[in-house]
Amino acid sequence: MIDLYTFTTPNGRKASIMLEEVGLPYNVHKIDITKGEQFTPEFMAINPNSKIPAIVDRESNITVFESGAILIYLAEKTGKLLPTDTKNRFQVLEWLMFQMGSVGPMFGQLNHFKNFAPSKIDYAIARYEKETLRLYSVLDTQLANQEFICGNYSIADIATYPWVAIYEFQGLTLDNHPNLKRWVETMQQRPAVQEGMKVPS
Amino acid sequence: MIDLYTFTTPNGRKASIMLEEVGLPYNVHKIDITKGEQFTPEFMAINPNSKIPAIVDRESNITVFESGAILIYLAEKTGKLLPTDTKNRFQVLEWLMFQMGSVGPMFGQLNHFKNFAPSKIDYAIARYEKETLRLYSVLDTQLANQEFICGNYSIADIATYPWVAIYEFQGLTLDNHPNLKRWVETMQQRPAVQEGMKVPS
Ligand SMILES: N[C@@H](CCC(=O)N[C@@H](CS)C(=O)NCC(=O)O)C(=O)O
Ligand SMILES: N[C@@H](CCC(=O)N[C@@H](CS)C(=O)NCC(=O)O)C(=O)O
Repeated sequence: MIDLYTFTTPNGRKASIMLEEVGLPYNVHKIDITKGEQFTPEFMAINPNSKIPAIVDRESNITVFESGAILIYLAEKTGKLLPTDTKNRFQVLEWLMFQMGSVGPMFGQLNHFKNFAPSKIDYAIARYEKETLRLYSVLDTQLANQEFICGNYSIADIATYPWVAIYEFQGLTLDNHPNLKRWVETMQQRPAVQEGMKVPS
Repeated sequence: MIDLYTFTTPNGRKASIMLEEVGLPYNVHKIDITKGEQFTPEFMAINPNSKIPAIVDRESNITVFESGAILIYLAEKTGKLLPTDTKNRFQVLEWLMFQMGSVGPMFGQLNHFKNFAPSKIDYAIARYEKETLRLYSVLDTQLANQEFICGNYSIADIATYPWVAIYEFQGLTLDNHPNLKRWVETMQQRPAVQEGMKVPS
């Protein structure tokens, strides 16, 4: 059994979508980050960086935090969604890192300055909107001739989807990025994505 | 032979330090990002996200971009600096992801607003300075009872070092984080770190 510590955010949903896709049973522990529950000593023993998501695999007694590491862990545990031949494996890992290092943090900064900061700072909003649209374009080009980011469906898609899916919340449209839009629609039709996006309820 | 495409920045130095540590021969190709060399069709065929670092392994004919993926690739190719048992392996991968998802992007935003933005925006400087100091504390706690981030020296240290090493450029001190300061000094004494930090010349 896997214990999943998560909340209703894009990084949390990567883990729940993955658990649904690979079909491993899991218990959900909701960590309400709007109430500071990520700072309890119990949770910080699991993730000293006090962020969701994190998992504890009760079978192996292994704890993993950081969504990117969780995706690799679950892929290797189940033999699913991460190719084993070196070339394809590293294509998935580089696009996973692209999500972890660019898509997540930069879309996150746009969220902050557009939706949460106490005042509207035009320079910062423009900076992160420009970068978000640039990243949309990189993904759109990558998806021009193939259904998923690395050809076959993989953890790179799972990592990226919950962040692209919030485009309306970010005041953006996907209309200028038709391949990305088609990919979002494909992702939305997957039952595991639908289930994972409801976690935690 | 490995071809390394890089520049004089923290993300680039992760790759050159790693190549020095594992002792693989490599050719350096300097991509001057201040002159837009990351946008040439030749380089974008290697990294469609137009960022350094990237490598091409001429032996396997595999291309890898994103510093985090490069570190895993070189570790697996050489059997060095990434443990193979699941528990220790995922500890290194989670701290590598912590660097990729938090340390790199957030220290990078502090650089931008403190040193490069056309005007000083107090709110943004304070936001990223606070987060950088919080990340220093997370690392300082992790280093309290062990020499390296995951106990033994690993790619998690290599990923993190070039970003912490620029603390003066960021107008910060490590004096309030003695374990982190000691770790920086330990890292600085490694010949491979010294060599890797000089690349590209
Ligand atoms: N790089 C991390 C980021 C995790 C993260 O930023 N989690 C957010 C929610 S999406 C969080 O827990 N925030 C609480 C806080 O910052 O205090 C990952 O991918 O797991
Ligand atoms: N997540 C990427 C980040 C790479 C990155 O940001 N590279 C910078 C230099 S440190 C770059 O090439 N910037 C050029 C540009 O943004 O146009 C990695 O770790 O490799």
